[in-house]
Amino acid sequence: MKRIGILTAGGDCPGLNAVIRVVGKAAHQGGLEVVGVEDGYLGLCEGRMRVLGPEDLSGILTRGGTILGSNNKTDPAACRVREGDRVVVKDLRDEIVARCRDMGIEVMVVIGGDGTMAGAASLCQRGLPIVGVPKTIDNDLWSTDITFGHDTAVTTAAEALDKVHDTASAHHRVLVVELMGRHAGWIALSAGVASGADVILIPEIPFRMEAVAEKCLQRNAHGKRFTVISVGEGAIPVGGQEFVDRVDPDSPDPIRLGGVGRFVAQEVERLTGLEARSIVLGHVQRGGTPTPRDRMLATEFGHHAFELLQAGQWNRLVVQREGRTGSVPIEEVAGKVRTVPVDHPLIRAARGIGTSFGD
Amino acid sequence: MKRIGILTAGGDCPGLNAVIRVVGKAAHQGGLEVVGVEDGYLGLCEGRMRVLGPEDLSGILTRGGTILGSNNKTDPAACRVREGDRVVVKDLRDEIVARCRDMGIEVMVVIGGDGTMAGAASLCQRGLPIVGVPKTIDNDLWSTDITFGHDTAVTTAAEALDKVHDTASAHHRVLVVELMGRHAGWIALSAGVASGADVILIPEIPFRMEAVAEKCLQRNAHGKRFTVISVGEGAIPVGGQEFVDRVDPDSPDPIRLGGVGRFVAQEVERLTGLEARSIVLGHVQRGGTPTPRDRMLATEFGHHAFELLQAGQWNRLVVQREGRTGSVPIEEVAGKVRTVPVDHPLIRAARGIGTSFGD
Amino acid sequence: MKRIGILTAGGDCPGLNAVIRVVGKAAHQGGLEVVGVEDGYLGLCEGRMRVLGPEDLSGILTRGGTILGSNNKTDPAACRVREGDRVVVKDLRDEIVARCRDMGIEVMVVIGGDGTMAGAASLCQRGLPIVGVPKTIDNDLWSTDITFGHDTAVTTAAEALDKVHDTASAHHRVLVVELMGRHAGWIALSAGVASGADVILIPEIPFRMEAVAEKCLQRNAHGKRFTVISVGEGAIPVGGQEFVDRVDPDSPDPIRLGGVGRFVAQEVERLTGLEARSIVLGHVQRGGTPTPRDRMLATEFGHHAFELLQAGQWNRLVVQREGRTGSVPIEEVAGKVRTVPVDHPLIRAARGIGTSFGD
Amino acid sequence: MKRIGILTAGGDCPGLNAVIRVVGKAAHQGGLEVVGVEDGYLGLCEGRMRVLGPEDLSGILTRGGTILGSNNKTDPAACRVREGDRVVVKDLRDEIVARCRDMGIEVMVVIGGDGTMAGAASLCQRGLPIVGVPKTIDNDLWSTDITFGHDTAVTTAAEALDKVHDTASAHHRVLVVELMGRHAGWIALSAGVASGADVILIPEIPFRMEAVAEKCLQRNAHGKRFTVISVGEGAIPVGGQEFVDRVDPDSPDPIRLGGVGRFVAQEVERLTGLEARSIVLGHVQRGGTPTPRDRMLATEFGHHAFELLQAGQWNRLVVQREGRTGSVPIEEVAGKVRTVPVDHPLIRAARGIGTSFGD
Repeated sequence: MKRIGILTAGGDCPGLNAVIRVVGKAAHQGGLEVVGVEDGYLGLCEGRMRVLGPEDLSGILTRGGTILGSNNKTDPAACRVREGDRVVVKDLRDEIVARCRDMGIEVMVVIGGDGTMAGAASLCQRGLPIVGVPKTIDNDLWSTDITFGHDTAVTTAAEALDKVHDTASAHHRVLVVELMGRHAGWIALSAGVASGADVILIPEIPFRMEAVAEKCLQRNAHGKRFTVISVGEGAIPVGGQEFVDRVDPDSPDPIRLGGVGRFVAQEVERLTGLEARSIVLGHVQRGGTPTPRDRMLATEFGHHAFELLQAGQWNRLVVQREGRTGSVPIEEVAGKVRTVPVDHPLIRAARGIGTSFGD
Repeated sequence: MKRIGILTAGGDCPGLNAVIRVVGKAAHQGGLEVVGVEDGYLGLCEGRMRVLGPEDLSGILTRGGTILGSNNKTDPAACRVREGDRVVVKDLRDEIVARCRDMGIEVMVVIGGDGTMAGAASLCQRGLPIVGVPKTIDNDLWSTDITFGHDTAVTTAAEALDKVHDTASAHHRVLVVELMGRHAGWIALSAGVASGADVILIPEIPFRMEAVAEKCLQRNAHGKRFTVISVGEGAIPVGGQEFVDRVDPDSPDPIRLGGVGRFVAQEVERLTGLEARSIVLGHVQRGGTPTPRDRMLATEFGHHAFELLQAGQWNRLVVQREGRTGSVPIEEVAGKVRTVPVDHPLIRAARGIGTSFGD
Repeated sequence: MKRIGILTAGGDCPGLNAVIRVVGKAAHQGGLEVVGVEDGYLGLCEGRMRVLGPEDLSGILTRGGTILGSNNKTDPAACRVREGDRVVVKDLRDEIVARCRDMGIEVMVVIGGDGTMAGAASLCQRGLPIVGVPKTIDNDLWSTDITFGHDTAVTTAAEALDKVHDTASAHHRVLVVELMGRHAGWIALSAGVASGADVILIPEIPFRMEAVAEKCLQRNAHGKRFTVISVGEGAIPVGGQEFVDRVDPDSPDPIRLGGVGRFVAQEVERLTGLEARSIVLGHVQRGGTPTPRDRMLATEFGHHAFELLQAGQWNRLVVQREGRTGSVPIEEVAGKVRTVPVDHPLIRAARGIGTSFGD
Repeated sequence: MKRIGILTAGGDCPGLNAVIRVVGKAAHQGGLEVVGVEDGYLGLCEGRMRVLGPEDLSGILTRGGTILGSNNKTDPAACRVREGDRVVVKDLRDEIVARCRDMGIEVMVVIGGDGTMAGAASLCQRGLPIVGVPKTIDNDLWSTDITFGHDTAVTTAAEALDKVHDTASAHHRVLVVELMGRHAGWIALSAGVASGADVILIPEIPFRMEAVAEKCLQRNAHGKRFTVISVGEGAIPVGGQEFVDRVDPDSPDPIRLGGVGRFVAQEVERLTGLEARSIVLGHVQRGGTPTPRDRMLATEFGHHAFELLQAGQWNRLVVQREGRTGSVPIEEVAGKVRTVPVDHPLIRAARGIGTSFGD
């Protein structure tokens, strides 16, 4: 082998540069050339690539973002391409495979999430050997117990909860922090337990506003005149439609205008008379210097990807299960979400000390 | 003198506990007893006070919030009091002064902002000697160059800007971060300069969306395909009404539904076709362990308050001007706001390297 | 069951308070009373205990240290007790068991390391039911893959390495950071990989100074005029006696005067002529707010201990293996150390990108 | 003017890159070319310089160290130069001035401390116009109230004190942290006050070990069984020779073997029988991402330097006094040290709450 490629696709995630660094450095040590693709599949479609030298890989271990750029909208099977005046949607997979072959790229390391891996699998089938490295701050990727970036996101989220905790206790308020996690509640659960949130609401456990309100009142009655609520953005009340209706009945897109965090704060005020505030932490969770743990995990995953690549074990995705790093066929992860089991030890522990899940 | 009181009022602010600690410890060293009032003026109206011993003051220097609780809604001249079934508004100032006298509280140390000091001045006039310590994360209090809590808020805000910077650069986006500062742009300016924001929008400099959009496009043209915008919540476009109208014409309270950060993101998308996102950092800016600098400043301010108190220099507010800690009459600060001068050195420096202020 | 006890023993470790909190709160939820023992076995010998109420457990989740105090010198079988003028060594185990029985303490939750668990096992044998929770920042406790506190220590260590990296690169120096880990190199390895150290020296892999010096010169020759070395305090050169001799031949305790970090820096200067500096991070690694991950792990471990206790599964130690929390007999851990396997994935990954282990 | 130069000299300091960035970007905005000199005066002597483009200045605001490299051993009047086999010391000032003239460098921005400015003044006299920017983490530079880097160093130091505070309180120990500051105690004082150290020892106030020991015992007697001591590396006991003698009487360089921190810990143990430990924080204080405040200050200083340069105000050093940024003649700072006044407000405040300065 002489030349390998590498690309990052999907939403931003701390640790991407750590993976690029270890794959690139290991390749250089092994006498291989490394080609970095810009902006995920978009750059692959458009042929924007550059050779990465040692100086490109230096000093990036601690940096958030990705030196290659990313893009979370492109499917190689349905690329939006400009043709003259018009934008047309085209299947560029054969073209991509041919271009990589022309450039001498023998294997492509693809770092991305669920959607990215679906695209990778389809490129594999057409002849571009691929090794996948899983990436999601949400930690909801099927087949791996943990992914890099998640620990950093949880840390950012827990620090925000710690901070509003001060304010909530000083002002006797209910403070709701809406965290990322559309399909799975890992961030809201982890940060909530880490920060001692009084109520944790996650997509896996539909909540009743009455139970949430009761918890706030009950704390008040016990002299704890504040409540901190950690809520995943995908959490929904029992009877979801009611939620949509209440947020803003006249709006064409009520959830976007409000979000579940705001809904919970408004409903707490309505049901209890207590003062409530909400914040949406948003993209802050995707950035920042990765935690040491995420840098280690990204380094381990990236190196395992390189070992697979050297061993000719293509079309596989690096995973960690039961504490061991290994791999599974890329196809295995498509279209599945790893949600939080409702009897997860952290949920049991939180319930054990009186934390409410709104059910 | 035998007994002094201390209370914290207004919005939360990192460093409150550091002030309480130094005033309390200095009083104990001087043989005085310290009475802590709960929940600001509300507790004073309701007579909720307790003696603070050494153990109450131990370990609180690094903690956000306030061990006394605060309240940002109560004016001693217009207290909402429950009488039987009804809530009535009463002037409780004479009652408060009498109660403090009965309890042997000879001077009250009041830690708070603009509104708090207006209340303090009126209690002074009725015979309760007061020493004021200024508090505002916004740094917009008249008569002092700096207040504790601001450095912590700027640090939190700059860290958020640093984090979205990663994501913006990875995804070629415009990212707008709305920061606190209704009347003055100190946080948005300071954090913006500290984090290298490309556009900084503050209340003191009305902005034109066209100028903001142009900056984004210009960066794009120079190959920098992302833009980070730091915006103070009180920033308004030239012709403010237009802003209110555009955010959501049908809403009774359009700003609350959106806010200026969201407005800017939407308008950037409309005017440039670039992808834009906004986040509102919110209450996270009010909490957290104070920075070492804020702990020092709070300690210096608190100790100066104690020195004023010992010297019988009542009805004065601790301030820092031109690097020196001193004091001014409490009345001096009422109803005034310290805004950012439009030729502030940080603005000059930022303009000097091409940062846009939207004008 | 009506009453349980809890104690923390051994060196300081972030997360101790998180365990105390969850055990205490779960006990309160279950209607049990919780007695906290002060200063580990010492307090148990001396009968210093107090009932912990809800207010004692509030606000401690994020605090380093232990609200109960600890002590790392006392073995219940050989307690130093003052009798009149003299200090005598006595076996107090029967006395301790009797006192706990008198106080109605039915089970004792003991949080500690290797030595602590040996003591716990011997108390068990005499009739005091015990549930153990493992604690070590070094992560070298036999039978569990991970313990709380370690992630915080690694984070502190990696931040120090990140900082000296700046200085090393600005000044073209070799910078050696000596980290904790007398018997196992987990901290030096983890922080070294996380921070991209160029050389990592751990007790498990004896090093040759010639190899370390060569790495420094080789980097220099490639234009990288700085080298960062992460070294565990227990690392020793091949032929350990030589090391002891060179540090300071006249001193009765040469290692204490110097330490391996200083030795490495001196030898690098001698062998290469490059400027080298060393720092010993020391006790900073034992303190600080636990990372969110350590707070979660401590919460999970503490809750599992409570579940064991409720199920009557005494004389067991909580562990995590292959990602699952469970328990083993307390006796199992005594006298064993979990060292780093020399083919650990992090070592493989580090070697794969050219990191030297000095062998 | 067409071309300016910039160099960083002396010890490492967070914020150097922020100055380089703002000077470079402002120069680019003004149509000037910027030449970066490598490794301080050493690179100037050796002619190692390179033109800095916009891409060199991008992304460096938050990075510690200096992209130009530094060197703290070179005096342009006495450069060590290799001539054939020998190293000779030469006065290269005329050569440097001539080389800059040949390269078209019309003004040189020099970022450095006391020693660096002495060199700069002598180059000025020979015809190389210079604008100086002060740099020292110790904050002991004459003529300016504050310099960038100091806030970051204080933050690092205070975080270390916070962490050992946990351990000290858990284990009932005396913990001594030795901080930077050979000639002035700004870091030890500031971090000590910020972190609530019980004893603060600085070079400006010679200390008696008896007073330090008494404070430890006194705290013990009041039930506070731990003491945290912040000590500047230049602090000396009353009668300095005694200190040198006691550390290690047989050693040719006793202080290097021990340092004042270790001395204090040993003496506390000897005088009180309490368990004491010391750590030397060392170079960690010089690195790391600058705090937002240091980034602002560096940006303001750098921009002011550029304004001086544009206005033809050469041979001046940027300073901040009484909250205002201005400048003084470079010669003014040579050979002077700004020490802590013994009646500094922070010292008064600390004494007011019982902190001991060992006198």
